[in-house]
Amino acid sequence: MRPRALLLLLLLLLLLGALRSGGSPARNVLLLLADDGGFEIGAYNNSAIRTPNLDALARRGLVFQNAFTSVSSCSPSRASILTGLPQHQNGMYGLHQDVHHFNSFDGVRSLPLLLSQAGVRTGIIGKKHVGPGAVYPFDFAYTEENSSVLQVGRNITRIKALVRRFLQSQDERPFFLYVAFHDPHRCGHSQPQYGPFCERFGNGESGMGWIPDWKPQIYRPERVQVPAFVPDTPAARADLAAQYTTIGRMDQGIGLVLQELRRAGFLNSTLVIYTSDNGIPFPGGRTNLYRSGTAEPLLLSSPEHPRRWGQLSPAFASLLDLTPTILDWFSIPYPAYSIFGSRQVQLTGKSLLPALESEQPWATAFSSQSHHEVTMYYPMRAVQHGPFRLIHNLNYKMPFPIDQDLYVSPTFQDLLNRSRAGRPTHWHRSLRRYYYRERWELFDCSRDPGEGQNLAPDPRYGHTLQQLRAMLLKWQWDTGDPWVCAPDAVLEQRLSPQCQPLHNEL
Amino acid sequence: MRPRALLLLLLLLLLLGALRSGGSPARNVLLLLADDGGFEIGAYNNSAIRTPNLDALARRGLVFQNAFTSVSSCSPSRASILTGLPQHQNGMYGLHQDVHHFNSFDGVRSLPLLLSQAGVRTGIIGKKHVGPGAVYPFDFAYTEENSSVLQVGRNITRIKALVRRFLQSQDERPFFLYVAFHDPHRCGHSQPQYGPFCERFGNGESGMGWIPDWKPQIYRPERVQVPAFVPDTPAARADLAAQYTTIGRMDQGIGLVLQELRRAGFLNSTLVIYTSDNGIPFPGGRTNLYRSGTAEPLLLSSPEHPRRWGQLSPAFASLLDLTPTILDWFSIPYPAYSIFGSRQVQLTGKSLLPALESEQPWATAFSSQSHHEVTMYYPMRAVQHGPFRLIHNLNYKMPFPIDQDLYVSPTFQDLLNRSRAGRPTHWHRSLRRYYYRERWELFDCSRDPGEGQNLAPDPRYGHTLQQLRAMLLKWQWDTGDPWVCAPDAVLEQRLSPQCQPLHNEL
Repeated sequence: MRPRALLLLLLLLLLLGALRSGGSPARNVLLLLADDGGFEIGAYNNSAIRTPNLDALARRGLVFQNAFTSVSSCSPSRASILTGLPQHQNGMYGLHQDVHHFNSFDGVRSLPLLLSQAGVRTGIIGKKHVGPGAVYPFDFAYTEENSSVLQVGRNITRIKALVRRFLQSQDERPFFLYVAFHDPHRCGHSQPQYGPFCERFGNGESGMGWIPDWKPQIYRPERVQVPAFVPDTPAARADLAAQYTTIGRMDQGIGLVLQELRRAGFLNSTLVIYTSDNGIPFPGGRTNLYRSGTAEPLLLSSPEHPRRWGQLSPAFASLLDLTPTILDWFSIPYPAYSIFGSRQVQLTGKSLLPALESEQPWATAFSSQSHHEVTMYYPMRAVQHGPFRLIHNLNYKMPFPIDQDLYVSPTFQDLLNRSRAGRPTHWHRSLRRYYYRERWELFDCSRDPGEGQNLAPDPRYGHTLQQLRAMLLKWQWDTGDPWVCAPDAVLEQRLSPQCQPLHNEL
Repeated sequence: MRPRALLLLLLLLLLLGALRSGGSPARNVLLLLADDGGFEIGAYNNSAIRTPNLDALARRGLVFQNAFTSVSSCSPSRASILTGLPQHQNGMYGLHQDVHHFNSFDGVRSLPLLLSQAGVRTGIIGKKHVGPGAVYPFDFAYTEENSSVLQVGRNITRIKALVRRFLQSQDERPFFLYVAFHDPHRCGHSQPQYGPFCERFGNGESGMGWIPDWKPQIYRPERVQVPAFVPDTPAARADLAAQYTTIGRMDQGIGLVLQELRRAGFLNSTLVIYTSDNGIPFPGGRTNLYRSGTAEPLLLSSPEHPRRWGQLSPAFASLLDLTPTILDWFSIPYPAYSIFGSRQVQLTGKSLLPALESEQPWATAFSSQSHHEVTMYYPMRAVQHGPFRLIHNLNYKMPFPIDQDLYVSPTFQDLLNRSRAGRPTHWHRSLRRYYYRERWELFDCSRDPGEGQNLAPDPRYGHTLQQLRAMLLKWQWDTGDPWVCAPDAVLEQRLSPQCQPLHNEL
């Protein structure tokens, strides 16, 4: 080879190398998940709490004002986040642990599985709460399956160290790191010794252990902001104050995690997402498909999209959108496959990345819940379209079930005691009304944020009711919902699936 | 060693050898299970059907007149047979396949597992329908998991060959062989081309295939015996006639299996058990905890206990007794262990072997059902004590759910059409009454075999009601039932488990 040709070849190789690193730089994802977190964040206009790290993240990202979980229950929500499929489609019909024993179907292709197959390194730190293991594989995993959930989910010094270890890897692949905090989940049912929200865990007091990186923030009950759907009582305020302390710990943990990201040099190549799995653990929150139970904080921070940093977006987002968003970020297509029979699985969510460029007209979000605890059978299907929210309560003749964790909470015990004694509850509902719901509930969330006035029987809203029912039914068919015919008919799958009426005539 | 001492040692060794083979001869178990089988057997006084092989087995065994499944649904029943634990304790809350997706808990120690650990060789031929695999291991397995369920469950020539292969093993261990026929299960929902009960499968007609060992018996609808809980209509009679043909195939298959046992030399060392998993697939049968849905045929044939051969026993037996019976037969103790937390698992069933010696005073049987299909949530708990049967319907405000397989059956379609048209149903219930049940149902089965008169509200039966409620509740606590507090209260497990009332005062 002549020297000139050699030089040309060398230049070409250098150019290709530059193109490779410059043209498609490694892109990573950091997903930060709160456990039962809500809008107790400065960036969501809560001025009573201090969340400087979440607020800083919001200033580097887009703040969604209408983000919803597809299911207000821990395992089902995590499964739907990690699959892009609602609980009735991925099989996680309720909680994963012990007697509840729900698992996603073996054939589901989850986000970590698809990422791994596409050459992305995956890690999880914190609360996993989904299964089976083969459906949700992670290359790096410190969860309740091999560690104390308090340590990997609430000890922010431990979390920091694990994040550092993950990021220090010599692995050159892009990464997806999922940090699933156990904060601000209630503690009363599992480790009551640490206070109702585990707010004393690691605070350095006698018997509480010490988390070196945590500077506990203490809040006065009279200063908290009580959400409109929570009774404004001393008991609830004390609960909220404890919750704030725990949110503060998570916020500081998020600061540490982002600092590790920056130190490792990944801050400018990493899409950072912050959200929560389900509603806050108060009456009307978690386990409900009311807006109060499904609306979630959602921050989307992309280093490549500074244009909308710090802006608020009214566009509707669903946690079902996270899988399509993350696949889109990595330019990985969703595969053609089926879980059962010949029906091909389709993601009904969308990539949220276009919203980082410009405002989007998205105005619809679907939800689906079946169980929480295995004994808590109360299937609901819901759609919010613009201001209108429609909920279909399938087991509506039976009382709405109350989970053990909520039951023992000071807020609920106080509500129960006040109701029994006939004392003022300072709540916008009665417990009786909370237990016994109409089959169809239609709310105009713009005029009735408390979701107190059911418009379903009102003929003036008949058109809206029919429109939302049709949207919901179509989504149920599209997502292979086994409950699509319930409770009036039998789903007959022998030939083409269809609903066979049972009771209407009787 | 002196010659005399040598001779003595030799004699001693011979004696030990003789004791070993004579003192504890190899004892085996053959469990024959029908799929949705009922009392359409000559030995149970049905003179319209020909079941010579079952009748011969009855003449070599004890015939139980009061045997009950603990759950009237396929997977849960098989799981409870193979664990000795009710569905709410072993975790198989409903059907195992596809979207239903129920599985027993990983920590359950099943009969095949315990037998295997104790040196018994295990085999399954036919329908398995339980999981996970690690909980239900078999050394020899031909089931729907690796074969066509029609072949291993209904093709009696194939079943004969598999039994022969199992018995021809050179393995010296005692064995437990479980032959789980798919007959006489309905066919309309899965393979309708073979007729409503697969009665044409393998009959040699065009497209039906050929089972060489099967001599199909054809029954005239007008000659069948219609059970009291089934509508006496031409549609139901045609269904029953088809069912009889399929029972006939199973009966001939049982003849072949027993012939293989005899040929292999195991007939006189093998405990043979025949029963069925749940009620027949007719209204009031399968999925019901009425007596009509839970009463099962049960033949117990021991070569070592000829004393009661051919006798009828009124002693109550439960399919929860099979695991203790089989462990007793092999002299294997049930281990001390827990599935969750510190609660030790206890079998609430009993060994049936004493009944082979003499009549027993057993007069109580418990049942527990939660789901069938995952969408069919209708938890029930029941106890029959003497003539009285108490059923607790936990989701009683919602209609009783109808499964897809029953829904498409000619009997049910006819019943539905007659009900809609207001024509005579020839049934002892109305569909409305069938769908909508009282929370507590108490029947005196001796005076009211049709279970039509609910005595629960009758103050004259108040004592009986309280007695049976107390028995049922105690059993629920003893078996760790997650539904023990439902539907009035929340099960609070934080400290010692207890029921916390929710709704009573509201």
